[in-house]
Amino acid sequence: MQEVVIAGIGQTPVGEHWQLSLRNLSALAIREAIADSGGLKPQAMYVGNFLASVASHQANLGALLAGNVGLDGIEAISAEAGEASGAAALCMGYLAVSSGFVNVALVVGVEKVTDVVGQEMETLLAQSSDYDFEAVEGLTPTGQAALLMNSYIHQYNVERDVFADLAIIAHENAINNPKAMYQRAISREAYRKAPVVCEPLNLLDIAPYADGAAAVILTRRELAPTNGSHPMVEVAGIGFNTDALALHDRADLLAFDAVRISTQAALEKAGVGIQQMDFFETWDAFSIYVVLSLEAAGFARRGEGWKLLKNSMLSLEGELPIATMGGLKARGFPLGAAGVYQVVDAVMQLRGQAGKNQIKGAQMALVQALGGSAASSVTYVLKRL
Amino acid sequence: MQEVVIAGIGQTPVGEHWQLSLRNLSALAIREAIADSGGLKPQAMYVGNFLASVASHQANLGALLAGNVGLDGIEAISAEAGEASGAAALCMGYLAVSSGFVNVALVVGVEKVTDVVGQEMETLLAQSSDYDFEAVEGLTPTGQAALLMNSYIHQYNVERDVFADLAIIAHENAINNPKAMYQRAISREAYRKAPVVCEPLNLLDIAPYADGAAAVILTRRELAPTNGSHPMVEVAGIGFNTDALALHDRADLLAFDAVRISTQAALEKAGVGIQQMDFFETWDAFSIYVVLSLEAAGFARRGEGWKLLKNSMLSLEGELPIATMGGLKARGFPLGAAGVYQVVDAVMQLRGQAGKNQIKGAQMALVQALGGSAASSVTYVLKRL
Repeated sequence: MQEVVIAGIGQTPVGEHWQLSLRNLSALAIREAIADSGGLKPQAMYVGNFLASVASHQANLGALLAGNVGLDGIEAISAEAGEASGAAALCMGYLAVSSGFVNVALVVGVEKVTDVVGQEMETLLAQSSDYDFEAVEGLTPTGQAALLMNSYIHQYNVERDVFADLAIIAHENAINNPKAMYQRAISREAYRKAPVVCEPLNLLDIAPYADGAAAVILTRRELAPTNGSHPMVEVAGIGFNTDALALHDRADLLAFDAVRISTQAALEKAGVGIQQMDFFETWDAFSIYVVLSLEAAGFARRGEGWKLLKNSMLSLEGELPIATMGGLKARGFPLGAAGVYQVVDAVMQLRGQAGKNQIKGAQMALVQALGGSAASSVTYVLKRL
Repeated sequence: MQEVVIAGIGQTPVGEHWQLSLRNLSALAIREAIADSGGLKPQAMYVGNFLASVASHQANLGALLAGNVGLDGIEAISAEAGEASGAAALCMGYLAVSSGFVNVALVVGVEKVTDVVGQEMETLLAQSSDYDFEAVEGLTPTGQAALLMNSYIHQYNVERDVFADLAIIAHENAINNPKAMYQRAISREAYRKAPVVCEPLNLLDIAPYADGAAAVILTRRELAPTNGSHPMVEVAGIGFNTDALALHDRADLLAFDAVRISTQAALEKAGVGIQQMDFFETWDAFSIYVVLSLEAAGFARRGEGWKLLKNSMLSLEGELPIATMGGLKARGFPLGAAGVYQVVDAVMQLRGQAGKNQIKGAQMALVQALGGSAASSVTYVLKRL
């Protein structure tokens, strides 16, 4: 397998884009990524999307989005793994380039969902869980997260309030991200007063569903322009794995096995250890997911992930910064596009382009996207060259 | 890139499977393919599916279907390219194996749609066309095909009746396929009397939408069991390409550019010429698509594809057999799963397992799946080793 680098990145602001369709959003991100790559010409495109079929009556996004930006005649298909779809599309792009099938691949994550609101949205989201045995019974993704959080709090005797820091960190970091949905801080008081959505989860434990598109250009190292406009970032390792889709089919609810296995695979492929990671773009769709991911990935022992929060290790000044540009919580959560946004954020850090949020000397990052209550986990090790 | 072979195949009968869900159908095909491969253990799974999200409220099929057959912990995602989704998933499996990312990949195409009927079905299918500019205006896939057929008949002054042979050939070939939906012949008289669906298309120009699952096991040549239970079939070349999704965005309605480019790419990768193909598993979702594909792929000159029909070249006894096990028309058209069924059919021919339909000495096949009125085209060259 050949060395794959991220030569270009692009993103739209995350938010409620009522005046932009799937093709408009994608085009903005694609054109920015191609320009950022120094004008590399993609030979294949992989689209990460979760809900276009139900939210926009549109499938076959490969042909639609390629043609829309004048790239018809290239290879183009979609990848789907629930909310981890964007990250799954990146895997496909990685395979296409590393196998030598193409020299340059474009990966775009796009989601357009804010026309759907309220319980209808929750119904659509439940498509990434086991419909026949979970969703039809009324167990939604929010309900699943609440169940996990309850279980965690009781099993490890953790104070409910410890989770507050995740929302506080994410919002603090989003202040300096012009593409973020919420560029403002929240107080501990606001978190405590936030309305309960599904006991014990409150509104600030949940990342806000939003629209957006992000894109990256992948190529082999020797083909990337070397005009020095920015350092190259290598996709040093990837791992994507699955766990039982339905929570009731898992031996250990709090284990997040797919996270554990995909992290090990990515680290092994990169030939590095988890202690070498300078930051972690984690999947903060729900606050409890962060704690369980920290443990499953190996940043903390079982039952001790919450201590990283307690010890302030996850802020930009801490030992393992997370959500460095606002995370899903404050940058906004464009579902199937989020995995590509995370990679774009990590690349900015590794290039030294993160502005006021720059982590000094950042060389290596772990990036992780989850689909369907951690049934799908896609993990990347990104490395500054 | 490394040599990829198809070491195992499996398929369910195609039909109206009201008592089997997505997971049941998939499991049947997956278990058969694994057994046929001599028990190879897949490390990654690629699911080809088009409509589960809208027809079964279910996304994230990778995790669902892997867990359901006891394969959780493996990599699993879905690929989508409209009706060509199964073929697109096969591309993903091919890339994963040829890049060395995994040693053994499982590809499963599955579709479960017959609970949806009538105009609602046509609405769902229209998702593979341009929703904003075609579907909302009422132009359905059937309408698109009728438009192309009308245009062809007028431009080349072809007799309407020449298309009859496609349905007749497909049904004749399906008689000996126990997995086919319609194992019976149809007469020219029946074709002539078939009700018009959308002028000039009649009911027998259209492949019947159905449920089904088909699976293949891909591995590298040196890893495939050599116990001699069946000859190995190599994926010698692949090409997948796109054309403008909306018909109004194409310079030449009858050109099928994605077919032309993907065929050239597949032949080039295989290092062979189109005249070396012993048969062609073509995309007969609509009869006109066959004629246009024959021309775009290079089997006939522009405006002369219909002459291959006139000259009886496409039956099992002809120079270029098509739909050798019944095609989409008579085997049944399980939408996103169809691309994998075509590969299974071709592998049976190349192994010499096609029974009464066996093409003597078949060494090489072109297999082609289309999505969204030929906006997506996935083409394979398969070769007996």
